[in-house]
Formats: sequence, C-alpha cells, structure tokens
Amino acid sequence: MSVLIVGSTALDSIKTPKAENPRLLGGSASHAAVAASFFSPVKLVGVVGEDFPKRYIQLYKRHRIDLEGLQILPGKTFHWSGEYELNMNNRRTLLTELGVFETFTPTLPKAHQSSQFVLLANIAPSLQSHVLNQMQRPRFIAADTMDLWLNIALPDLLKLINRLDAFVLNDSEAHQLTKEDNVFAALRKIHKLGPKYVIIKKGSHGSILSGPQGFFICPAYPLHKVVDPTGAGDSFVGGMMGYLATAKGSIDQNIRRAMIYGSVVASFCCEGFGLNRTTRIRRSHINQRVKELTKLTKF
Amino acid sequence: MSVLIVGSTALDSIKTPKAENPRLLGGSASHAAVAASFFSPVKLVGVVGEDFPKRYIQLYKRHRIDLEGLQILPGKTFHWSGEYELNMNNRRTLLTELGVFETFTPTLPKAHQSSQFVLLANIAPSLQSHVLNQMQRPRFIAADTMDLWLNIALPDLLKLINRLDAFVLNDSEAHQLTKEDNVFAALRKIHKLGPKYVIIKKGSHGSILSGPQGFFICPAYPLHKVVDPTGAGDSFVGGMMGYLATAKGSIDQNIRRAMIYGSVVASFCCEGFGLNRTTRIRRSHINQRVKELTKLTKF
Repeated sequence: MSVLIVGSTALDSIKTPKAENPRLLGGSASHAAVAASFFSPVKLVGVVGEDFPKRYIQLYKRHRIDLEGLQILPGKTFHWSGEYELNMNNRRTLLTELGVFETFTPTLPKAHQSSQFVLLANIAPSLQSHVLNQMQRPRFIAADTMDLWLNIALPDLLKLINRLDAFVLNDSEAHQLTKEDNVFAALRKIHKLGPKYVIIKKGSHGSILSGPQGFFICPAYPLHKVVDPTGAGDSFVGGMMGYLATAKGSIDQNIRRAMIYGSVVASFCCEGFGLNRTTRIRRSHINQRVKELTKLTKF
Repeated sequence: MSVLIVGSTALDSIKTPKAENPRLLGGSASHAAVAASFFSPVKLVGVVGEDFPKRYIQLYKRHRIDLEGLQILPGKTFHWSGEYELNMNNRRTLLTELGVFETFTPTLPKAHQSSQFVLLANIAPSLQSHVLNQMQRPRFIAADTMDLWLNIALPDLLKLINRLDAFVLNDSEAHQLTKEDNVFAALRKIHKLGPKYVIIKKGSHGSILSGPQGFFICPAYPLHKVVDPTGAGDSFVGGMMGYLATAKGSIDQNIRRAMIYGSVVASFCCEGFGLNRTTRIRRSHINQRVKELTKLTKF
C-alpha cells in the first residue's frame, strides 16, 4: 500500500555553529516522503516555484516518489532559513519567504483520493483539512503540526485533530496545547480531542505513544554527534507511516515497530544537513540500526 | 549479599506548589538504603544529631537496615530545605544547616569493612574516598554525586571517580563535567576518568548505561503525577545496588535489570513526599511495575 503525504516542500538554509548550508531540499513533506520511501511507495502533494532545482526533482524520483500531486507554480519556492545554537536543541528562524506557498491549495489528483494511508505532515491545519475533504475513506490518517499553528490557527487545528487516527506533536507543543507539564497527563488530554493514537516526540529522549494498548516508550537511536536535526520529526512520522502502510496485520500490531523504524530513519536524518545523509542510506542500513536498538533496550 | 551505603542522613523540609512538608526523613543514604532494602540487607553509614526523631530510627529498622554505622552525635541533624517550581523539574535550595555533618568522618565498623557491594551515595567526595580507604576488596563500588561537588571539590571527585566500578550522575552534571551536550559523547569522556560503568540519569526521560556490553537505554516508569522528586535519583541507585547484591550471575548479566528495578523504586519515590510512598510499598508492588515497564517497552 502507498502513503499519501502532504506538507511543505521547501528550500532550507541552515546555519549551525559548525557550518552553513544554503538552499538544501527541505520541508516537512520532503523529509517525510524520503523517509517513507524506504518502506512503501509514496505520493507527494505539495507546491514548489519555478526556481526549484531540477536535481531535487531527480532526488524525489530516485526515491520513486510519485510527483503527480506536486504543483510547480510561477514564483519562488518556500524558503526557510534557521540557525541552531551550540547544543543543537534550540533554533531560531532567521527568515521565512512563503513564495508560492502563500496561495497554495492542495488539489488531489483522482488517483490519490482513495489512498489508504495519509500523512498530513506539518503545514497549515486548514490545508491539512482541505486534503482530507477530498479523500474517500482512508484506513489510517496521521498528522503532525508545529507551534506556529497552535499560536495562530488553534481553532483550525482542533477541528483537524478530531478527524485523525493519530496525532503527532513534540513535547513543548503538547505542553502548549494542554498546559500540562507531565507528558502522560498531556497524552490523556489530547486523546479527548479525538485521536485514538497520540505520539509525543521528545527529540533525543525518544517518543511516547498512547493508544488502545496503553503506552509505548520508544527510544531514540544513540547518536554521538548531531549535525543538523532539521526534519528529524518529519522523518520519524514519515518512516513510521511508510512502515505501517506495508506491514501485515493491524495498526495495533505494527505501530510500535513502525515507531522504531521511524526513530531510526530520524537518526540518519540528524547525521547530515537537510536530506544529505538520509538520501545516502539503504533499507539494510535501517534494518541494522533497528537490530542495534533492539539490543540497546533489552533487559 | 548486603549493600554498604554511605551518604547523607538528613531532615528535609520540602515545599512544592501544592504543599509544604517540614522535617521529613531525607538524605541520599536514607533514600538509597530504603530502596535497596527491598532487595538485600543494607548497612547504613551516616551521622545524625540528637534531635533525630526516634520514629525515623524505627523506620530504618522496619526496613531491617543495619544501623551499627549510624553515628548519633551531640548537635543537630543535617537539615535541607528546598522549593520546587510548578513543573517539578527546577528546585532551589532555601536553606542548608550542616549540623553534625560539618565535622562528620565516617568510620566503618569492623563488620562493614569486608562488604562486597558499596554504594557511595551523594556526599562530599573526600568522605566517599575516606570510606573506600577503610575497605578491603569490594566486588562492586558505585558512587553518585551532585553539582555542588563539581563546583567546589572537583579534584577530590576526579580522584574518587578513578576508583569506581560505576559512576552515576545526572545529565546536567555530565554536561558540567565534560562540556559535552551530547549524552553519548559525555559517556565516552567519563569512561576515560576510570569507571567501567557510567550511568547518566535523565529524570522522567529515564537513564543511559554505558558499559562493556555497550549502551542500555533504561526507561522511566510513566507517572501521571509527580508529588516530590526529592531522592528519586538516590532511590534509583539504591534499588539498583540492592538488586545487584542479591542477583545471581555477573554484573554484566544483571545490571540492566538492576537499573529497571531502580527506576521503578524511583517512580514510587516521586509519588509521595520524602519517603512517604516508598515506605508504604512491598516488593510485590515493585515487581508489578517492572512487569508493566517490560510491556511498555516491547516492540
């Protein structure tokens, strides 16, 4: 089964204390799509401008990502620029040029409307809902978000959350949404907003799933060095959804392992700028780290 | 086998946003000793003043803690007073009255000197070393510390670390000691100071072991509510050492499970003020949570 992924497709200029990389391929949908592509076919829905480098189109294609839903419009590609502090945990946005994203309305090609696995990667919640409105009956809908939408589009976001099977957010967003410092108390409150599965991402501390079978404490793969964490969260959900779309059995049977796979793809993402490292790995590298992670958590 | 535990024995006055509790039984050795007592016999080494409430002596005795090494001296018991912020992560010290601790020199009774398992719970590193100097050949020596000693007694602490089998510290202390933000990079540096096993505690995010068999990612038991985290780290190492002292097989075979047991005892510690909750549980409650934690981490 394939995964339909909608989200941002962008050019990222990323500064860390050690290096500066302009106009990398970025955006939530790019990271999620490449991550998912290791496990299942991917249909990408997004928008880029005429300045979008051909080599990035080639990159998508090398990952066999279906680009029928990628609009190329007159104007500039969404450009984000950010800077990380020394500890790689805090980042600040230096610049956001929306470009063609300003007027983007995702329209699903006919063939996409019957997709069974849908990932609404980070993008305005009104657009995420707009995508859902065009769909028939997906089997599993997951969405990610960011603090910006909690700040400026909370009513839209709440409407969206109520339509999801799985809602994925990071710990500071969970705190912002629920006013709960305790992650398990926050999970409980978020379930009341609708989703059967809630996943809170905690960066290098891993992630927590709350679902019908209780909690799952998902570890992060140990990294001695983080080069650039941009897109790690998107890679996590992308990898998870890709795994879920092709795994046999129920969501409940597979979601824990799916998170482990997502966690491992996210670890590769952190080891290079943008998608530099993720695009250089194969499924066998992922399997190897999953094996290691299994050993690292056994007791 | 029994565990010898040396550390502080104190009265703690703890303020949280919800409540205030004066003169609870506290101190690193008290928490660690009670935690260890669920698994093995414990010999406590510490000092209290004449004001030390009889009911706390009774409490130690109910846990069958050997008090031959507990000195009762003229003067006041060490008194610490602290206040937690709303998120229960940040605390500030309101008052520290050293009392009889000011001139304390731990002297080991003859019977204690041949102990095989030694936990040097948080106390000045010079005193931790002084205890080691009186011992024959312990099979396994672990020590905990705190930021204060990194600030005012680093040379003493480094000398001590070099004599340990296992060094336990929290993530901010690991950062302070190594200048490494990355916990795995920090672990590598701390090994170079001597210990075969290094454990970094990360509070509600669990802990990480680095040892001869690689890393172990140890989860924290999920708590919906933290009443008072004081002593959780001491309970963790205490529980771990108690488990290790009685488990059959090598340290390598047992240390991961020992950390899981320690983690569970620490979870109980957080659910009440001081030792209020920990002293009300039985081994069966611990086993139950270990079972749950096993389920929560399976994939």
